[in-house]
Amino acid sequence: MKTLITSFLLFLSVLTAKCATVDTISTFSQAMRKNIKAVVIRPDATKQPPALPVVYLLHGYGGNYGDWVNKVKAVPALADQYGCMIVCPDGGIGSWYWDSPVDSSFRYETYIIKELIPYIDSKYATIKDRKGRAITGLSMGGHGALYLSFRHQDIFGAAGSMSGGVDIRPFPLNWDMAKRLGPYAGQKDSWEEHTVINLVNLLTPGSLNLLIDCGTNDFFFGVNEALHRELQYRNIPHDYTTRPGVHDWEYWKNAVLYQMLFFHQFFTR
Amino acid sequence: MKTLITSFLLFLSVLTAKCATVDTISTFSQAMRKNIKAVVIRPDATKQPPALPVVYLLHGYGGNYGDWVNKVKAVPALADQYGCMIVCPDGGIGSWYWDSPVDSSFRYETYIIKELIPYIDSKYATIKDRKGRAITGLSMGGHGALYLSFRHQDIFGAAGSMSGGVDIRPFPLNWDMAKRLGPYAGQKDSWEEHTVINLVNLLTPGSLNLLIDCGTNDFFFGVNEALHRELQYRNIPHDYTTRPGVHDWEYWKNAVLYQMLFFHQFFTR
Amino acid sequence: MKTLITSFLLFLSVLTAKCATVDTISTFSQAMRKNIKAVVIRPDATKQPPALPVVYLLHGYGGNYGDWVNKVKAVPALADQYGCMIVCPDGGIGSWYWDSPVDSSFRYETYIIKELIPYIDSKYATIKDRKGRAITGLSMGGHGALYLSFRHQDIFGAAGSMSGGVDIRPFPLNWDMAKRLGPYAGQKDSWEEHTVINLVNLLTPGSLNLLIDCGTNDFFFGVNEALHRELQYRNIPHDYTTRPGVHDWEYWKNAVLYQMLFFHQFFTR
Amino acid sequence: MKTLITSFLLFLSVLTAKCATVDTISTFSQAMRKNIKAVVIRPDATKQPPALPVVYLLHGYGGNYGDWVNKVKAVPALADQYGCMIVCPDGGIGSWYWDSPVDSSFRYETYIIKELIPYIDSKYATIKDRKGRAITGLSMGGHGALYLSFRHQDIFGAAGSMSGGVDIRPFPLNWDMAKRLGPYAGQKDSWEEHTVINLVNLLTPGSLNLLIDCGTNDFFFGVNEALHRELQYRNIPHDYTTRPGVHDWEYWKNAVLYQMLFFHQFFTR
Repeated sequence: MKTLITSFLLFLSVLTAKCATVDTISTFSQAMRKNIKAVVIRPDATKQPPALPVVYLLHGYGGNYGDWVNKVKAVPALADQYGCMIVCPDGGIGSWYWDSPVDSSFRYETYIIKELIPYIDSKYATIKDRKGRAITGLSMGGHGALYLSFRHQDIFGAAGSMSGGVDIRPFPLNWDMAKRLGPYAGQKDSWEEHTVINLVNLLTPGSLNLLIDCGTNDFFFGVNEALHRELQYRNIPHDYTTRPGVHDWEYWKNAVLYQMLFFHQFFTR
Repeated sequence: MKTLITSFLLFLSVLTAKCATVDTISTFSQAMRKNIKAVVIRPDATKQPPALPVVYLLHGYGGNYGDWVNKVKAVPALADQYGCMIVCPDGGIGSWYWDSPVDSSFRYETYIIKELIPYIDSKYATIKDRKGRAITGLSMGGHGALYLSFRHQDIFGAAGSMSGGVDIRPFPLNWDMAKRLGPYAGQKDSWEEHTVINLVNLLTPGSLNLLIDCGTNDFFFGVNEALHRELQYRNIPHDYTTRPGVHDWEYWKNAVLYQMLFFHQFFTR
Repeated sequence: MKTLITSFLLFLSVLTAKCATVDTISTFSQAMRKNIKAVVIRPDATKQPPALPVVYLLHGYGGNYGDWVNKVKAVPALADQYGCMIVCPDGGIGSWYWDSPVDSSFRYETYIIKELIPYIDSKYATIKDRKGRAITGLSMGGHGALYLSFRHQDIFGAAGSMSGGVDIRPFPLNWDMAKRLGPYAGQKDSWEEHTVINLVNLLTPGSLNLLIDCGTNDFFFGVNEALHRELQYRNIPHDYTTRPGVHDWEYWKNAVLYQMLFFHQFFTR
Repeated sequence: MKTLITSFLLFLSVLTAKCATVDTISTFSQAMRKNIKAVVIRPDATKQPPALPVVYLLHGYGGNYGDWVNKVKAVPALADQYGCMIVCPDGGIGSWYWDSPVDSSFRYETYIIKELIPYIDSKYATIKDRKGRAITGLSMGGHGALYLSFRHQDIFGAAGSMSGGVDIRPFPLNWDMAKRLGPYAGQKDSWEEHTVINLVNLLTPGSLNLLIDCGTNDFFFGVNEALHRELQYRNIPHDYTTRPGVHDWEYWKNAVLYQMLFFHQFFTR
């Protein structure tokens, strides 16, 4: 039945010869005193139900808000296919989506939770409830999606991670993390508090719908296996997928299809 | 682009007020000297490309060819969504899809490989090549899909398993297996040769595209974990997913969506 | 005390401006009807006791008898340092040191055990006993050293492996193994019988002194971990070392120093 | 045979009448207001380069500065063989080489780092740099070597552990540890901060060259396996060796040979 409905929506889409609208928006962050861009994808207008669910899709280290639509051409079509909005925030070169405890110019948790999401909810016909919000991302963005969703379960009902840096401690010298947190040797407590694998105490069974995946030849494979075991030990239900693959867009181009299917199941259950 | 095409096909489908055709066919098995039924699902005729890929979808112990369409209403729509045929063979109450070495009235490997597939290829506009054939199933059917695909890589290019009985040895008294092979205590070699986990030597890296999944509370979880580790140790690429869930249709109703997405990626790559 | 002696010998060695003699010998193999070369390293004559222990040092796939002395300049000095001979046999491009069951032109087990070792013992003042013979090698040669020593414990008292291919089954398409054994899919039994990890039943606790090592980023790391676990489970005493490193001469240049120290301890205990 | 050789070497040895010098020194510790002894081994003068590297070699619980030279006769010869100094500090009966947070009469970290090493560097022609200093030890001394080197990477460039008590928490009632830290039940934080396995955050990949070993029948085997896994998970390169053996001098007499070879490779690379 569900698929029949989907088919019908897609029919309307094609009938009017339209497809997803991809906009780049810019909002002023009070927290960081600067304008920040985001990509907003809306499915074809004619097929919009009264209110749409939204998937927040985060980029990796060194990337920006445009990565997902630039690298994976199928992303806008996924908004049509599943009848949801997709929002791609900007996370800076290497914010790790934290509010940095040592650099007040990095407050990306506040930006996404307190500024971007309220803006999206005020401007668009969204489902303004955790049942209509999901968040996922790749690499730094996989970490970010879990970090933010674990800490803001009132905001998100589902979350995913693709090739996520779900434990930062084995990478004390990499990707600006020490710039955001201070050196691991000296700021051990801060690192322990900002790594996803140490935040599983925030979860209760079923509190978040989770799909975590990683390639078996990814340098983050070990930490994803560790998070999976930890979640399993803690009785936290979660989907976990490992696939052939490394840390590249070939992997994510495929992985995002499963993430979207998963969120669609969450939104429509 | 791929999704655009899918959308367009679905548009046509709705436009003409049609959808997948579900037929029950009956063929005479020379090997077993009896008529055997199967469900054949074809996507809406107007959207058929010249030749269609086919997914063979196997039922579990105690079931029959009608299970998948009876229990999961979305199955026919998946044929439309992905533009492929779905064929649900009958595997008897407990054939395990083997040619039984002790009971000549059970020759289901021969039936599917030598009789049903040639029949389907002769009657329908199918892609008559391993690139256009996939096989999956649940429980006994997950075992069957891997058993048949490992042994007939010329026939299948992709295979899956949902909650599959991928190692039969821990279940020596269950589900008619001893009737098909003789008792494990007395027929050890036969059991060793008919259990999927012992057939990985038939695979080479990349020879089959594989998606294996199982619920973490399933009684088959242990054997799926073991098969996953064995495949990983053997450098055989495969997708592997574990999810919350037990051995029931609630699980398979969800799992089959991912199986079909996986095969669609295989067919259209 | 032992080390004092060693130090003193090295001191004398320098004093008299002498060092190890490196010869290339050629012998006719009856088994393979061809001449085969080997490098023979003898420590400085002035320090030779009446009879010397011998370390057989095997090369890897694609290499030859000259690899060790060409790639690791310190090898001859190790003969001086420890007062032993070092013999580097030729194992062909990819013999894996088996007597091939499918190609009678590959009989390297027979060559080394029945031809080369008797020749060395007849030509040089060696200790003609397992207490005076050790064998090790890198990669294919690590496999070879364990394969030959497990099967010929009357010949060798100690054995080692550096980055050894100690289980061949995860590599069904690599390095000529299928040429020597036939394809794994069709010749399963032969592969199972020619892979080191399946030969541990030949060992009894203490029957061989073993030092197995592998780099943690080596593609053979997984199989070495598996062999280590298997030996540990079987109560077979063995030294096992893992180090940072990959499958290259940088690793072996270092690893061979520890292998030689280990054999020296065995020879002089 | 062995006896003949030994006789011959002894003869030569006496002929040249030179070898390592073993002294016992005593220094006054300001931190602990008492004299503390140490063994200092210097290689034969004729072979000394301008400045020598130093290996600090720690004893175990219940022992003292004289243990290594008394129990392992080959230790002085190792200084000759590798052209380095060896210093054996005294660590008290059960100091665990900490500055005790509950007993100011135990300040062995301060003693070794701030008092003994500066003294050695001022009295002898040492390489006054981390590139020329290594530290290792057995049991309590293995713990001590890692504890001190992790915390003082400016002082040491390489470190080792033989049968080390690298996690103290599983032994809350043993070997005076509760006297030094207070009871584990009451002083959990202190125990967590004084156990080596919890200090891996001080390391970055390659910051220290590490060789950790343990016997497979040692009561410390479990904690060494755990440390090895933790280091591996954290991407901290390290050599790790397991051997047949228990917690005794038979094991350490052999193990120290490999430790010295490892440090020699570090000093001369």
